Amino acid sequence: MSLEIIRKEMLPAIEQALKAAVQPAVGAGQGELNAMLAYHLGWQGEGAMPRAAGKRVRPTLVLLTAWAAGGDWKNALPASAAVELLHNFSLIHDDIQDKSEQRRGRPTLWAKWGVPQAINAGDAMFALAHIALEGLEKTTSAAVYIQAARVLPRTSLQLTQGQHLDLAYEEMAGLDVEAYWPMAWGKTAMLIRACTQLGALAGGASGRILKAYMTFGEKLGLAYQVHDDLLGIWGVEQNIGKSIISDLISGKKSLPVLYALQQKGDFAKRWHNGHIQEADVRDLVNLLEKDGGRTYAREQATKLTGEALDALQAAKPEKEAGKTLAELAEELGRREV
Amino acid sequence: MSLEIIRKEMLPAIEQALKAAVQPAVGAGQGELNAMLAYHLGWQGEGAMPRAAGKRVRPTLVLLTAWAAGGDWKNALPASAAVELLHNFSLIHDDIQDKSEQRRGRPTLWAKWGVPQAINAGDAMFALAHIALEGLEKTTSAAVYIQAARVLPRTSLQLTQGQHLDLAYEEMAGLDVEAYWPMAWGKTAMLIRACTQLGALAGGASGRILKAYMTFGEKLGLAYQVHDDLLGIWGVEQNIGKSIISDLISGKKSLPVLYALQQKGDFAKRWHNGHIQEADVRDLVNLLEKDGGRTYAREQATKLTGEALDALQAAKPEKEAGKTLAELAEELGRREV
Repeated sequence: MSLEIIRKEMLPAIEQALKAAVQPAVGAGQGELNAMLAYHLGWQGEGAMPRAAGKRVRPTLVLLTAWAAGGDWKNALPASAAVELLHNFSLIHDDIQDKSEQRRGRPTLWAKWGVPQAINAGDAMFALAHIALEGLEKTTSAAVYIQAARVLPRTSLQLTQGQHLDLAYEEMAGLDVEAYWPMAWGKTAMLIRACTQLGALAGGASGRILKAYMTFGEKLGLAYQVHDDLLGIWGVEQNIGKSIISDLISGKKSLPVLYALQQKGDFAKRWHNGHIQEADVRDLVNLLEKDGGRTYAREQATKLTGEALDALQAAKPEKEAGKTLAELAEELGRREV
Repeated sequence: MSLEIIRKEMLPAIEQALKAAVQPAVGAGQGELNAMLAYHLGWQGEGAMPRAAGKRVRPTLVLLTAWAAGGDWKNALPASAAVELLHNFSLIHDDIQDKSEQRRGRPTLWAKWGVPQAINAGDAMFALAHIALEGLEKTTSAAVYIQAARVLPRTSLQLTQGQHLDLAYEEMAGLDVEAYWPMAWGKTAMLIRACTQLGALAGGASGRILKAYMTFGEKLGLAYQVHDDLLGIWGVEQNIGKSIISDLISGKKSLPVLYALQQKGDFAKRWHNGHIQEADVRDLVNLLEKDGGRTYAREQATKLTGEALDALQAAKPEKEAGKTLAELAEELGRREV
């Protein structure tokens, strides 16, 4: 039943909240900027809705957590729009930074409109995220809104800190597996934590319960990133909508890679042997598997998902919502690798 | 006496507030990101302080307006740091979008650290602006903070709307002089208006007085942009720290250019005659002057400065602070062209 609530009630409400949230961007002469935002959010252009929109995992997580914490999930809609806009702002800029030409099976914003306009559209999305959150003042209270408003820019800052490491690591040799965690923490886990934190705040949680929901989000976010790393190497191209070999060619320091490098075996030897071409990728993936990168990352993802579920239990969620959150967490760990 | 207050008290307090405002960015592995922020703010690297820092016009305007509105200017320090960070975030991204390699007499952030890291550092600065503003809750009240917090992301959104037009206009032919104002309004005037609005809010203003300070900022901001356009063509290179010919070569639709194009005279003929090279600039500047672009822009700047000063009068500012604000407004219009 709960999954039906997501599909029939929550997802349509999220789209409605997102559409309202981009309204402040509509102004004289801004037709093209609005088209860029609508394209990136999956509402316009080739392949629009549902696939180009992404799965709206983060806003769904906000609403489910609000429900789990004992509140009406509808009160958390402003926060759900805010995190989805923040996520999409970071995707727009990431795609420029990584020179990714494809996302969700179609051209990225910069590939279509050029880098200058795409940087600017990302900045607009960032501003809109903050404006969207203001709705919480009405659906909850001024005090909850002020608490929530503190979360958003801190999460944004942590995103940039994670991204800074991600970019810096591409040029760095000699990193060990421990270097991975601050990057994944900032790049991914903090935004997922913001989802459960904002949802719990909107649902009326505080103190130890709020903290438990934050731990749930943080661990879930780390597991999500590790799983994304696995998908970036062993995923099936058509399922993730981007090239599966780009992560190895671009030298991304994913968890399987960092682990295997630390083993100083055949994978490390080949990795340090110079620039990786498309033709080398198959061999490299085999060496990565032989040196334990895949197994280690899978173990970490399983462990982190377990810790997330423990934290969820500790938050004593409303029964139906708690079950759905647990299902969601397990489903994220079951994405095909 | 008031200018001494700016130099001896306000400017040092602004630097202190800015340094506190970037502290949240200090984290494990973030040394290089912090170095980027400190470099852009003019604290580190070649030519650091005072020139590389810029003149801190916007934060000074915040503090003077708070004082003019009858408050203690120190209470407005969080807002002064926030607007300066927002301004610098937009400069970092503008420099990437415009491919500008020099700012304030030294290499821009992207020219030194590359585009991906510079986009990211700009995003970090954007987040820090929002965090800086939170200090207002302590120096004023929760109600004033909530009002102020609404201003910041709306101003950011308007910045991106102005920047969107600026970038789009580079490729557009047949624009008339009216196309200029929404661009200048978003790109420049809204941030200057945010300075006087936030300052006035922190100083305790409301209703018609608050509105008058906002009009003061808006008109001053428009005058400032027109003047900047004049400087971009007739300024002296060493005074503005960037190439004076780049605005004409890049095809920027500045006010003198839009006015002269509308005259459909010799300037327009040469402009439409194909890509402008460095060797053509001297001739083009002469045609621009002949077709009235310089005179028209100067008249507009004078008119707008007058309207700004009228609005300032209507706000009934505290005597000493009001005099200083008026001096500042006139000084901005006297920058060498």
